[in-house]
Amino acid sequence: DFRRALEEVVPSFGVSADQFASCVPNGIIEFSDEFRGVVKTAKLLLQQVKNSDVTPVLSVLLEGSVGSGKTALAATLAMNSNYPYVKLITPEDFLRHSESVKRIKIDKYFQDAYKSPLSLIVVDDIERLLEYVPIGPRFSNMILQSLLVLFKKAPPPGRKLLVIATTSNREVLEAMQILDVFTEVLTIPDVSSGDQTATVLRAMKNYTEKDIKQISEKYSGKLPIKKLMTVADMAIQDDDGTSLADRFLRFAGSGSHTVPHG
Amino acid sequence: DFRRALEEVVPSFGVSADQFASCVPNGIIEFSDEFRGVVKTAKLLLQQVKNSDVTPVLSVLLEGSVGSGKTALAATLAMNSNYPYVKLITPEDFLRHSESVKRIKIDKYFQDAYKSPLSLIVVDDIERLLEYVPIGPRFSNMILQSLLVLFKKAPPPGRKLLVIATTSNREVLEAMQILDVFTEVLTIPDVSSGDQTATVLRAMKNYTEKDIKQISEKYSGKLPIKKLMTVADMAIQDDDGTSLADRFLRFAGSGSHTVPHG
Amino acid sequence: DFRRALEEVVPSFGVSADQFASCVPNGIIEFSDEFRGVVKTAKLLLQQVKNSDVTPVLSVLLEGSVGSGKTALAATLAMNSNYPYVKLITPEDFLRHSESVKRIKIDKYFQDAYKSPLSLIVVDDIERLLEYVPIGPRFSNMILQSLLVLFKKAPPPGRKLLVIATTSNREVLEAMQILDVFTEVLTIPDVSSGDQTATVLRAMKNYTEKDIKQISEKYSGKLPIKKLMTVADMAIQDDDGTSLADRFLRFAGSGSHTVPHG
Amino acid sequence: DFRRALEEVVPSFGVSADQFASCVPNGIIEFSDEFRGVVKTAKLLLQQVKNSDVTPVLSVLLEGSVGSGKTALAATLAMNSNYPYVKLITPEDFLRHSESVKRIKIDKYFQDAYKSPLSLIVVDDIERLLEYVPIGPRFSNMILQSLLVLFKKAPPPGRKLLVIATTSNREVLEAMQILDVFTEVLTIPDVSSGDQTATVLRAMKNYTEKDIKQISEKYSGKLPIKKLMTVADMAIQDDDGTSLADRFLRFAGSGSHTVPHG
Amino acid sequence: DFRRALEEVVPSFGVSADQFASCVPNGIIEFSDEFRGVVKTAKLLLQQVKNSDVTPVLSVLLEGSVGSGKTALAATLAMNSNYPYVKLITPEDFLRHSESVKRIKIDKYFQDAYKSPLSLIVVDDIERLLEYVPIGPRFSNMILQSLLVLFKKAPPPGRKLLVIATTSNREVLEAMQILDVFTEVLTIPDVSSGDQTATVLRAMKNYTEKDIKQISEKYSGKLPIKKLMTVADMAIQDDDGTSLADRFLRFAGSGSHTVPHG
Amino acid sequence: DFRRALEEVVPSFGVSADQFASCVPNGIIEFSDEFRGVVKTAKLLLQQVKNSDVTPVLSVLLEGSVGSGKTALAATLAMNSNYPYVKLITPEDFLRHSESVKRIKIDKYFQDAYKSPLSLIVVDDIERLLEYVPIGPRFSNMILQSLLVLFKKAPPPGRKLLVIATTSNREVLEAMQILDVFTEVLTIPDVSSGDQTATVLRAMKNYTEKDIKQISEKYSGKLPIKKLMTVADMAIQDDDGTSLADRFLRFAGSGSHTVPHG
Ligand SMILES: Nc1ncnc2c1ncn2[C@@H]1O[C@H](COP(=O)(O)OP(=O)(O)OP(=O)(O)O)[C@@H](O)[C@H]1O
Ligand SMILES: Nc1ncnc2c1ncn2[C@@H]1O[C@H](COP(=O)(O)OP(=O)(O)OP(=O)(O)O)[C@@H](O)[C@H]1O
Ligand SMILES: Nc1ncnc2c1ncn2[C@@H]1O[C@H](COP(=O)(O)OP(=O)(O)OP(=O)(O)O)[C@@H](O)[C@H]1O
Ligand SMILES: Nc1ncnc2c1ncn2[C@@H]1O[C@H](COP(=O)(O)OP(=O)(O)OP(=O)(O)O)[C@@H](O)[C@H]1O
Ligand SMILES: Nc1ncnc2c1ncn2[C@@H]1O[C@H](COP(=O)(O)OP(=O)(O)OP(=O)(O)O)[C@@H](O)[C@H]1O
Ligand SMILES: Nc1ncnc2c1ncn2[C@@H]1O[C@H](COP(=O)(O)OP(=O)(O)OP(=O)(O)O)[C@@H](O)[C@H]1O
Ligand SMILES: [Mg+2]
Ligand SMILES: [Mg+2]
Ligand SMILES: [Mg+2]
Ligand SMILES: [Mg+2]
Ligand SMILES: [Mg+2]
Ligand SMILES: [Mg+2]
Repeated sequence: DFRRALEEVVPSFGVSADQFASCVPNGIIEFSDEFRGVVKTAKLLLQQVKNSDVTPVLSVLLEGSVGSGKTALAATLAMNSNYPYVKLITPEDFLRHSESVKRIKIDKYFQDAYKSPLSLIVVDDIERLLEYVPIGPRFSNMILQSLLVLFKKAPPPGRKLLVIATTSNREVLEAMQILDVFTEVLTIPDVSSGDQTATVLRAMKNYTEKDIKQISEKYSGKLPIKKLMTVADMAIQDDDGTSLADRFLRFAGSGSHTVPHG
Repeated sequence: DFRRALEEVVPSFGVSADQFASCVPNGIIEFSDEFRGVVKTAKLLLQQVKNSDVTPVLSVLLEGSVGSGKTALAATLAMNSNYPYVKLITPEDFLRHSESVKRIKIDKYFQDAYKSPLSLIVVDDIERLLEYVPIGPRFSNMILQSLLVLFKKAPPPGRKLLVIATTSNREVLEAMQILDVFTEVLTIPDVSSGDQTATVLRAMKNYTEKDIKQISEKYSGKLPIKKLMTVADMAIQDDDGTSLADRFLRFAGSGSHTVPHG
Repeated sequence: DFRRALEEVVPSFGVSADQFASCVPNGIIEFSDEFRGVVKTAKLLLQQVKNSDVTPVLSVLLEGSVGSGKTALAATLAMNSNYPYVKLITPEDFLRHSESVKRIKIDKYFQDAYKSPLSLIVVDDIERLLEYVPIGPRFSNMILQSLLVLFKKAPPPGRKLLVIATTSNREVLEAMQILDVFTEVLTIPDVSSGDQTATVLRAMKNYTEKDIKQISEKYSGKLPIKKLMTVADMAIQDDDGTSLADRFLRFAGSGSHTVPHG
Repeated sequence: DFRRALEEVVPSFGVSADQFASCVPNGIIEFSDEFRGVVKTAKLLLQQVKNSDVTPVLSVLLEGSVGSGKTALAATLAMNSNYPYVKLITPEDFLRHSESVKRIKIDKYFQDAYKSPLSLIVVDDIERLLEYVPIGPRFSNMILQSLLVLFKKAPPPGRKLLVIATTSNREVLEAMQILDVFTEVLTIPDVSSGDQTATVLRAMKNYTEKDIKQISEKYSGKLPIKKLMTVADMAIQDDDGTSLADRFLRFAGSGSHTVPHG
Repeated sequence: DFRRALEEVVPSFGVSADQFASCVPNGIIEFSDEFRGVVKTAKLLLQQVKNSDVTPVLSVLLEGSVGSGKTALAATLAMNSNYPYVKLITPEDFLRHSESVKRIKIDKYFQDAYKSPLSLIVVDDIERLLEYVPIGPRFSNMILQSLLVLFKKAPPPGRKLLVIATTSNREVLEAMQILDVFTEVLTIPDVSSGDQTATVLRAMKNYTEKDIKQISEKYSGKLPIKKLMTVADMAIQDDDGTSLADRFLRFAGSGSHTVPHG
Repeated sequence: DFRRALEEVVPSFGVSADQFASCVPNGIIEFSDEFRGVVKTAKLLLQQVKNSDVTPVLSVLLEGSVGSGKTALAATLAMNSNYPYVKLITPEDFLRHSESVKRIKIDKYFQDAYKSPLSLIVVDDIERLLEYVPIGPRFSNMILQSLLVLFKKAPPPGRKLLVIATTSNREVLEAMQILDVFTEVLTIPDVSSGDQTATVLRAMKNYTEKDIKQISEKYSGKLPIKKLMTVADMAIQDDDGTSLADRFLRFAGSGSHTVPHG
């Protein structure tokens, strides 16, 4: 019975493994203590679900700025979890689906999870899944209600489930009373000083130690890791004779990154 | 006629008996006098419906914090009621159903109850059943209207009905004027002092008397029983060399339970 | 023609007679002068419709607290009217019907009434029929518009109609401008003093004259008759050794009737 | 062509003639100069449409209190118009129709009118036709838009049309900008003094000259004619020994007409 | 190719030619310099579309009071334009159509226009086409969005288009940001003095020069031309012995034109 | 595989090439340094997508006044990009499509793009695509949600994508939180001084150097390039004897361009 359950869910697993990998093309950089703390708590919850009899279902919300690395971290945790069933639920897969088809599919992924003794479901970008927009505001209450039930519903006896969700709109989820449903809420920090920025640039491999030293001394900004990497890359492309460090500082410094004409 | 009515409803009963059991995996802990008072009143109403000719239908609302044990208590009362028909109506069963199918199914459960001489229906998590969300606010008026009628509709002559409903959103139900419909509204308390917490930890069996003594002396917080048990379990998992009591106090003390990195 | 009209409507009549009876299981208690005044005016309107040529259609609204006895009084008036066609329109009968089916059925009952020379239609619990909820507010405008037309539409020549409607939400009906449509609006009072309460308890037969005397001296509260009877019955069930009068006073006195634990 | 047009519309005409008659069971009482002024202007417009080449379509709105006699007057004008096509559009005929069927039927009545050389359409109780309710507010914009176009659309060359509409909610029509569409807006007055009241009571035939004299001296209230006649009739029914004039004054005097108990 | 395009659109053209004529039964009176200025600008735009290569599509909005002659002017311009394709889009033609059918038909008329080398489309009474009502406000966003695109979309190479739209609700169009789309916004004035009024009355032919002289001396009001002509006609009908000039002044003077009773 | 992907998308490319050309009938005039700066940044992003491995998807928003040349610039960039797949998504193509068909088609264009190694999609006039209207406000949340996902979704490994979107309603997009999704936001300036205006008029070829000199000295206004060219053209048409420069100054000076009558 146990083995059959495992086999039944293999296809779902396989598909998601690929998807998870594409969320972290270049691995994770542990750029600060705060970031490492988040990773540690998340791993503790993975372990608690596996070991405890008191808590057959737990859920954790990863929240942070746009581009702070929420999806990348959730995917990394899933890939390293060694759980027999891991699944990514992402808005990208529902672009042509109606609200009710979406609801049925989400429910299906949870039913699949209940067949495995130990499962992890990543629900990425909740506000996008809910089709939230602040004007109105509008969102799919149908999907919200499903999540409110599914995130805390106990699996059948002997089965266990961890839910990892992500959002860049914590306040909205609070207003929807979905925050109460999570066991933990963890905040992914931005890259926020010269030192942390140096760690990231070093990992990108296009910057010389000299460039990096110059930047880490002069730069005191704060950017989500994805934006930081895009800016760093833009500086590389715009080869106008000035030093790479200079160009980085120019792009990273201005709110808008428009190339000065001249 | 009486016997046939009983037989007709047996299947429904059987199903719900299982469901009720799964709501109380480890039995109920009577952790305070206030909690015991609630249990006592609920039992008096069970008896009144059975005995009286004046009140063929009564309804009681159990309200309290998220995780305070409302569902667990309602299920326990149902299992111990010895009523020939007991039924659990829970949002978990309607995840794929449209509003109108939901309405028909709820109505059906009440019609089934009317076939039994004595029935108890648990309507769990009313605000979830109504798909309530505070933004808007939005909810299913169709379901609300059905409940408003069904909760006070007299069963056919000779039949009797008790409705137990639960909510963690009392104010909203008040605004919807559904509170007027209940004969009684009972509040399930949180676990609120060292002594009450000790009672719960003792029942969990992982804590030594020494741990418990230390905690009951130092701890003065207040948590719904489910959150208390999750925190207590998290402390057990995070075996980092400090004492279990210390870890419990650290996790239970902080608003967010993030593991400090180090 | 007259006789055929009568025969045609017999089935409808039969059904409703049963329904009316079930609304007044134990007869009506005339507990105060104010209550008797309401009954008298209602009877005058019944007579006016029967006798006058100027007013072929009249309508009266019975309004009062939840449980004040509106449905019971309307049903009693209908049963004693000796009108050849009497019909109860109640939300309980529409639990599975869509808005538009409801509209068609209501219209049908009025068309049936127009076949009888003299008809009485009880429209019970208007705000429930309209699926009114104060949040929003929301309600069925389709049903409201039908009632606005049907309550004042003249029957065909030679036919006469009285409409008795009930509500516990007078202000809302006023805001909907449906109050203008009624010939009369009558308020059913609560049971409001020791003497009136004594009259009701006496009729319930479980209280001794001694109990009643003690209560009528000490009690000065005010309750809708249905709530009063439920409280009185609760006191009977909770046989904890204290006197029945004491228990009544304890339950009737507290806003919430929770049994004190101890 | 002219004759064929006339023949084509005969059926519609016949039906409406019956309907118009039933709106004025007992003829019109010209109870005041103001009332007579309204009648005169309305007749002038009937004549203008018939004679002029400049204005092939005119429209007039009769507005006044609930029960002031708007429908009765419109029907009387139609019956006495000698127009070959007269049609009553009333909410009573649309009770089971959806919004869009209603729209198609209204449009149809106007198309029929365009076949006749000279037509009069009475659009009774516009706010009811629009299913207007002040809460929201809500109404059928589909029907409103149809009326906005139809009330000012010129008939085909050589055809003429007068529209008479009624409302007891002038302000709302103003807010909807439908008032701009009417050539004239006429206000039907209430019956507002002893003399005018006497005129009405005299016409009712149940009151002796002595009763009437006494009332016209003592009474100084103001009521729409329909309410006045209902009160007068109620006084007739309640034969409690006091004089008819006294009873009239008692009922007409109190805001609510509840019979005093005693 | 050019000739075939012309032939293809002939039927549409024919139909609209009739429709345009019926909008101006009695020709246009150029009653003021301001009015003549509007006509001149409109003609310049007709010429610009014909001659220029820079501006293949232009659009002009005629705005003014209800009855100021917007439709009449637009129709006159279309009839005198000598454009091979002219089309009137009017709310009167959509009375039975759903929103989406309306949208498809409007789009179709523009597609037809693109087949002709030179086209003029009159979009009459935009706010009615949009089913606008100030309560809410409500309107068809679907139609609005179509117009926003169609009014500025360039026709295929070598084809040219002028759009003339009308409205009596300029502020609303501004709020909808549809005003930005027009090349020009022209205001049709009311008839605003004795002299201008005289010009209009003279053209009506029922007033003697003596009447007109008297009126132009005494009258200083301001009315849209259509209202002015209706009032002038009403005065003609009401032959009560006073002079025509007097009657005109009486009717035109009072806000409401109710005939004084007497 | 690479070649096949290229072939598969050829038809889409062909169609759009035509469409792009029609958006820039007369080439682009680089009328100011600011304008040149925008062009330079846009080209840098085109290059970054082509060369970088870090940023497989980038998006840029061109925002500016109505008629400032956003569509023309986007089309020019696309035509000169030498990307194997270029596609124009414009509201003009969706005039008859329902919201959900629109969504499917947009998604399809992105799926097509993912088949090409290097793609550019122009999403023109976002607020029109969303059917945005400020009254309400209303817009298609379904389309908005699709864009929010598609604009940042990474293409399959080895494929790259640049999105260029345009809007004249930047604030609204900000309120919808779609601005966060763009890598860059670039503002297209208006033509804002005598010198810049001279550059544009010179390119139009109807103005003599003398006219241009006179205008550039006297004119100090600011207009979007499209409006400027329409005004300049209008002055050409209105040949009333005054000099072209005078006529230009008169039309460009007045807010409304109504021809003075005379
Ligand atoms: N800690 C990290 N170390 C290295 N790369 C990272 C890290 N976090 C994110 N990235 C990279 O940044 C990119 C985007 O991050 P990701 O999509 O996870 O951010 P996000 O917070 O989910 O953004 P969004 O709010 O848009 O969903 C990914 O390509 C990922 O490889
Ligand atoms: N009094 C109690 N004694 C022992 N265990 C309890 C008690 N109350 C609740 N529990 C346990 O806590 C868990 C959750 O409680 P339950 O679901 O009944 O809370 P709830 O108030 O219904 O929460 P929610 O607001 O989420 O619906 C259950 O597993 C149950 O076994
Ligand atoms: N005057 C009365 N005398 C005796 N019993 C009464 C009287 N009025 C009501 N009852 C009893 O009270 C019960 C409920 O009253 P009823 O349903 O008519 O109240 P209601 O005002 O219609 O309540 P609701 O607002 O809930 O519709 C009935 O069982 C009826 O028998
Ligand atoms: N002037 C009148 N003279 C005599 N009877 C009248 C007069 N006006 C109205 N009535 C009588 O009053 C009754 C109701 O009047 P009617 O329905 O026309 O009023 P209404 O203003 O249309 O009311 P509502 O606002 O309800 O539509 C009719 O039966 C009619 O016969
Ligand atoms: N300048 C004019 N000279 C002569 N007659 C005119 C003139 N303008 C309008 N009319 C006449 O007035 C009548 C109504 O005018 P028209 O319908 O064009 O006004 P409108 O502004 O379109 O009104 P609405 O706001 O109701 O659409 C037409 O019969 C037309 O013949
Ligand atoms: N920089 C330019 N040089 C020359 N012509 C231009 C320039 N920009 C725009 N145009 C011309 O102006 C016309 C309209 O510009 P375009 O449609 O691109 O403006 P837009 O900003 O997209 O306007 P909208 O806000 O209405 O979408 C086009 O015909 C184009 O040829
Ligand atoms: Mg993400
Ligand atoms: Mg619960
Ligand atoms: Mg009732
Ligand atoms: Mg009426
Ligand atoms: Mg018009
Ligand atoms: Mg554009």
